[in-house]
Amino acid sequence: VARIDVGATIIDRGGHRHFMAKEIAEQPVVIGDVLNHYVKGDRIVLPEGLDFVALDRVTLVGCGTAHLAGHVAKYWFEQLAGLPCDIDVASEFRYREPPLSDRSLFVAVSQSGETADTLAALHYARGRVARTVGLVNVGTSAIARDSDTALPTLAGIEVSVASSKAFTCQLAVLGVLALKAAHDRGRIDGAGLAAHLRDLRAVPALLAQALALTDDCRTQAAWLAQARDVLYLGRGALYPVALEGALKLKELSYIHAEGYASGELKHGPIALIDGDVPVVVLAPHDALFDKTISNMQEVMARNGRILLISDAAGIAAAGDGVTATLALPTGGGVFQPILYAVPMQYLAYHTAVAKGTDVDQPRNLAKSVTVE
Amino acid sequence: VARIDVGATIIDRGGHRHFMAKEIAEQPVVIGDVLNHYVKGDRIVLPEGLDFVALDRVTLVGCGTAHLAGHVAKYWFEQLAGLPCDIDVASEFRYREPPLSDRSLFVAVSQSGETADTLAALHYARGRVARTVGLVNVGTSAIARDSDTALPTLAGIEVSVASSKAFTCQLAVLGVLALKAAHDRGRIDGAGLAAHLRDLRAVPALLAQALALTDDCRTQAAWLAQARDVLYLGRGALYPVALEGALKLKELSYIHAEGYASGELKHGPIALIDGDVPVVVLAPHDALFDKTISNMQEVMARNGRILLISDAAGIAAAGDGVTATLALPTGGGVFQPILYAVPMQYLAYHTAVAKGTDVDQPRNLAKSVTVE
Repeated sequence: VARIDVGATIIDRGGHRHFMAKEIAEQPVVIGDVLNHYVKGDRIVLPEGLDFVALDRVTLVGCGTAHLAGHVAKYWFEQLAGLPCDIDVASEFRYREPPLSDRSLFVAVSQSGETADTLAALHYARGRVARTVGLVNVGTSAIARDSDTALPTLAGIEVSVASSKAFTCQLAVLGVLALKAAHDRGRIDGAGLAAHLRDLRAVPALLAQALALTDDCRTQAAWLAQARDVLYLGRGALYPVALEGALKLKELSYIHAEGYASGELKHGPIALIDGDVPVVVLAPHDALFDKTISNMQEVMARNGRILLISDAAGIAAAGDGVTATLALPTGGGVFQPILYAVPMQYLAYHTAVAKGTDVDQPRNLAKSVTVE
Repeated sequence: VARIDVGATIIDRGGHRHFMAKEIAEQPVVIGDVLNHYVKGDRIVLPEGLDFVALDRVTLVGCGTAHLAGHVAKYWFEQLAGLPCDIDVASEFRYREPPLSDRSLFVAVSQSGETADTLAALHYARGRVARTVGLVNVGTSAIARDSDTALPTLAGIEVSVASSKAFTCQLAVLGVLALKAAHDRGRIDGAGLAAHLRDLRAVPALLAQALALTDDCRTQAAWLAQARDVLYLGRGALYPVALEGALKLKELSYIHAEGYASGELKHGPIALIDGDVPVVVLAPHDALFDKTISNMQEVMARNGRILLISDAAGIAAAGDGVTATLALPTGGGVFQPILYAVPMQYLAYHTAVAKGTDVDQPRNLAKSVTVE
């Protein structure tokens, strides 16, 4: 493990009660920074050698939250670039020793860049794929060194064990990569790229607006803190964000939260639903809205209580009868899921504060998992 | 929806208290039947046109338990045949409209053959892939009719809403398909095929032995029935079996159970662990045994209580200090995960009986989900 010299950098809570709150609040700035690094005007600036023209597939591997960043990006690579995308948790990937295409790109995602299983997965992929990329927050890490191309996520030092800004910075860089793939492969022209880049560059300001949800999330946390179990539902790229919301609540508050694809609810887990299990529904007012709301109404018909997270149009269309709502701004185009990370973080944070758990150092967890 | 004429067939509980118990107990017979249908001596007998030589990929789609059958088969297709395999839940697959290879095989897995999302996924895949297969228990169903090749799973009528014998029959047919792929692609020769077929044909007798676990599972159910939350852990092809165990417990007992890849535990969910959350560990004494046991010991170090499901060698090696063990027979080769389905089923069944829930008709669930 490389030690990081933080030099004169002052690592403090910056007036926040916990590092986690500070790191959530930093997201507009650090995402702005990382986008400024990889996007200049209407042009994407990435290291030499990252050319998607000849590639037939992308494989994204990580653990925990980093795996879920890859899961969101799968929707982007497939939708924007028409490039099939495999995702897996590193501990499964490395031992199942999957067949890999020598025309594929392998991306290892890890905040610390030292995650043992992810590093082993990278070593397995080297020599079997066209190119390896290490998407890491620590540029001097083993995964950065052992990848053909290291892409720093530039989130700054993340002290809280549960990841927040490192996750959204991973998403921002993966969004840039997906747009590069779409443009290289002729799926979008220069004008299309410019439009998507405008959406992506709107994200920091939208995140700054989303931070205002902290008070509403604190209010809802009083309710969630009473629960033993919570479900999170989402569709499409919001499905992995729902998984991340559940993971965050587990990590910080020790409440047994679980994320589900909305459409899977009726294939089993709906049996859990009663008035004691809050159900958090992520439903932007988009093409999949009606489908997700239909799943939400199945929950309500069984006395389930709903926290609906949407935008003003979505809440106007479907907010009747739900227990509570949280309204996010619209905008961001296909990169909107990045915004939905904020209420996931604040709900977990405020619930943990309400329960009195150790927010920055949850029990049993380590920041960097350098053993298998 | 097609109505099935069951003619003179008598559908009763056959002396069992619930259809679920009867259907679990039928598995040695129906798996024997389905293997006799698709395997003659050392030869696999499948309909014309199922040739894996020219294929570059397999995509398996289903909902709930059927999706998890596909998840197990992914390990088999990749390990035995070196054929990359994609899996997805049907509700996500159909709306993300993924790029598909015209040299790929698409397999829709559904007990009823009428599952709305799976049928829509099949319709999306038609014309985009080399061939579609419907793996269904109802041979007259829409998915059977609309597939290029329908493969009946021959489990007989399954009355209990929670699937048991339909799941293991899906696994048996998927095992045959994976062996066909491995042989067609020259990954195994005739002798290798014969050896794997011997392993597969040993499964019914091994299942008959595994049924004797019902009494031990009833004993453990007294413990599980007290829990609010239960985790299930497995690695490799046992990971989706752990997911199925958790799904079954949710469906039947309304306990919030969740399955995890063993190696993912330390990336978040281990924060949940305390003495009140039983952890069911699936760990056959195989190449991944030490890794899984290491994850189990992390749980024990945090006062977690373990129900270890293994074989005699595994229990001798790692049974010290766990709360309880269940011993399965060895054998079945790579198809051993089919055996591990039995304690998953019996633990859920006996826990539900102990809690007094409606075993055959759990609340909120329908046998065949013909709406989205």
